[in-house]
Amino acid sequence: MPKKELMTIFGETVRELRESHGWSQEQFAVEAGLHRTYVGSVERGERNITLNSTWRIAEALDMSASSLLTLVEAKL
Amino acid sequence: MPKKELMTIFGETVRELRESHGWSQEQFAVEAGLHRTYVGSVERGERNITLNSTWRIAEALDMSASSLLTLVEAKL
Repeated sequence: MPKKELMTIFGETVRELRESHGWSQEQFAVEAGLHRTYVGSVERGERNITLNSTWRIAEALDMSASSLLTLVEAKL
Repeated sequence: MPKKELMTIFGETVRELRESHGWSQEQFAVEAGLHRTYVGSVERGERNITLNSTWRIAEALDMSASSLLTLVEAKL
């Protein structure tokens, strides 16, 4: 699967989950220990995110990284 | 969880799965479309691997990325 598609769908999934928590990008960034502009670029699929950041994002969303990827895979 | 621990356990898990297929690092690298020395450094936990490379490694191991991470999470 092309890298761009994976990151686009990953970003869309993170955005949906963040919004379902009612968090702004800024609130979520604080929760995840990441910078707000970084979260924005992840949500737009612009980042080839690391596994470590995937973990932090999943933890901030109160889920495991494997559960987050299961949601991503369902959309691919 | 510390970044180092995640990458160490991720690398150990990839090594175990690769060996269970009976593949050398070189054979596996060809299968995954990655460089042999890169695979070696991933297995030693030396790389903060990207999500994209995680996907390629999982595909080469005939499993989904979420399934690979489930195995990693079970060891954390």
